[in-house]
Amino acid sequence: MTYPDTFEGFAVFNPSPETWSTVKKYEFTPKPFEDHDVDIKIQTCSICGSDVHSATNGWNKTNAYYPLVPGHEIIGKVVRLGPKVTDFKLGDRVGVGAQAQACLKCKICKSNNEIYCPHLVHTFGGVYQNQDGTETHSQGGYSNYARINDYFVFHIPEELSNEEAAPMLCAGITTFSPLVRNIPKELPEGQSKPRVGIVGLGGLGMMGIQWAHALGCETFVFSRTSRKKADAIKLGADQFIATAEDPDWVKKVEFDLDLVVCTANSAEGFDLNTYLRSLKIGGKWVNVGLPETPFTVSPRSFMANACFMGASHLGSHVEMIRMFKLAVEKGVRAWVEKIPISSDGVKEGLERCRYNKCRYRVALTDFDKAFA
Amino acid sequence: MTYPDTFEGFAVFNPSPETWSTVKKYEFTPKPFEDHDVDIKIQTCSICGSDVHSATNGWNKTNAYYPLVPGHEIIGKVVRLGPKVTDFKLGDRVGVGAQAQACLKCKICKSNNEIYCPHLVHTFGGVYQNQDGTETHSQGGYSNYARINDYFVFHIPEELSNEEAAPMLCAGITTFSPLVRNIPKELPEGQSKPRVGIVGLGGLGMMGIQWAHALGCETFVFSRTSRKKADAIKLGADQFIATAEDPDWVKKVEFDLDLVVCTANSAEGFDLNTYLRSLKIGGKWVNVGLPETPFTVSPRSFMANACFMGASHLGSHVEMIRMFKLAVEKGVRAWVEKIPISSDGVKEGLERCRYNKCRYRVALTDFDKAFA
Repeated sequence: MTYPDTFEGFAVFNPSPETWSTVKKYEFTPKPFEDHDVDIKIQTCSICGSDVHSATNGWNKTNAYYPLVPGHEIIGKVVRLGPKVTDFKLGDRVGVGAQAQACLKCKICKSNNEIYCPHLVHTFGGVYQNQDGTETHSQGGYSNYARINDYFVFHIPEELSNEEAAPMLCAGITTFSPLVRNIPKELPEGQSKPRVGIVGLGGLGMMGIQWAHALGCETFVFSRTSRKKADAIKLGADQFIATAEDPDWVKKVEFDLDLVVCTANSAEGFDLNTYLRSLKIGGKWVNVGLPETPFTVSPRSFMANACFMGASHLGSHVEMIRMFKLAVEKGVRAWVEKIPISSDGVKEGLERCRYNKCRYRVALTDFDKAFA
Repeated sequence: MTYPDTFEGFAVFNPSPETWSTVKKYEFTPKPFEDHDVDIKIQTCSICGSDVHSATNGWNKTNAYYPLVPGHEIIGKVVRLGPKVTDFKLGDRVGVGAQAQACLKCKICKSNNEIYCPHLVHTFGGVYQNQDGTETHSQGGYSNYARINDYFVFHIPEELSNEEAAPMLCAGITTFSPLVRNIPKELPEGQSKPRVGIVGLGGLGMMGIQWAHALGCETFVFSRTSRKKADAIKLGADQFIATAEDPDWVKKVEFDLDLVVCTANSAEGFDLNTYLRSLKIGGKWVNVGLPETPFTVSPRSFMANACFMGASHLGSHVEMIRMFKLAVEKGVRAWVEKIPISSDGVKEGLERCRYNKCRYRVALTDFDKAFA
């Protein structure tokens, strides 16, 4: 069978340390087509750190399943519309991020927080509870097609190329949402701009720095070494701090920042207690990376400045629309390296992502050729 | 020598498990009297959990010193005024909390956050850097006299008795400050009151419940068992949840609370991950207890509802004044049990505090007799 009965994607079959990045073509049956569904013929999908964590089962999910097709930074063309879809027409260029479904009825959803809906389904690695009573594993965007509820499908502004836009759908919104939710609305006398830190310059940091700058913040970038300093400045950093190169780095920013968005992907060797000292009284630290091991923190670490630590997951429909508007207005673009999709291309992309060997995202392209 | 050259107090000499609550009278030299100092003849001092942690050196402070006179919920009469003190006159009834000094010049102090000043000196257990270049260990309120910078001395409203007011100076302000700083100013449509949780009903919780109620919040009290339910309701609780009596307790409040102030004094067996689920999207958890061991938390624990965890330390001068005003307006009173001060009285008070055997604070009284 072929589309629309089955889709085809590049799947991880075994998350073991030897085979996690080895993908093979895999035919799968998508969820039943429902009234609000949109089918998308995929043109581009960029590679997110979550793809790696899922390919290795690094989060030790007990309900992980394989074969698993990763990918949730998806751009393509609308090829089929459910009868209740009103916002799209055939041929529209659209994007899909990491969320594919929510109940859209609960108090969480009704408050524009559908990303925190207890019934959310992720674009891959999740389980759809279909209207016909069946269940379907969700599979991601290293595929020829995606079938997604229209609330989680977004128009892509014509000013952005596929590759410039794709990473915004996860890395972009993941850093945009905690900024717009937590940048203080009022500033003390004498402070003209919010002071925001971005920790780490990878796929998330690359987007976060640009958003913080575009949102009018004085932007502080923290990285271990100076290696990425020129890039950080180009992305919009006002200050760059190489934490491994100056044991007293925190003195430059002590009690100074309103908000820090931390994209660090590992808790190991991460000196959270020192970092927290960079926050103003009552300042906020938001984790958007998802380390595989926990932090150990004492309430005392927060007591020196009454600071807060939290986390954030993706962002809402309303925020996604606002984000793309800002990208157009302020010239924000994802920085990507392109790799044509294939078994080898996916392997290379996943490994570059895992070992921080790209500036700063890999976008899989040429889907037409791979799924001819 | 005697006052004003030396003061006398009941001191812990050895923080060992056998001797931590054994106190003996101890004569000590106070800091030199400076222009902004106020000398207070102490009438009442209530016993705070910090007194116990300090008596046992439970926080493993490397700079702890003994003999140590605890006590930082102090009420007494002004008996001596530095030449630059303008707010007080001899004979005024005043109170002192856990902070005795700050630089009052840095940006932290200038923003009404002097409690987070890097140069803060606690009322006991700290070190004064005197203007004459010497250093003095600070000693607390289980004493005949206290010598305190006037910014950290407060008028006590005549409506409050010594014992009703004393615990407000630490337990009171410790719970008041995080409430007034973090209760949301705007509520979503359909919600008429902020929803605030207080975890634990001891000395801190006894004050926190009253403040939350007085500040117009719907107040949720969490305790292990129903034993203290009647008291919680009397203190102003709208809802009481006995977490050990209902394994599904969190379902009653899931995604529901704007703010939780946690007074728990121990991290052991404390199911922080479940508690965090009680918070609304973006809600805040503030620790005011200081467990002796750290929590282990994953950023993932915060990701289900984008919540935040932080901590808070005491409160500011401005907040202290606001707190006493509210106490008068709304009839807030500390619930205390009185014990006349003596070696035996202090021992009993410290042990009742450590083992949760009081409702809900012990106030040491009859200083006149002990220091005749």
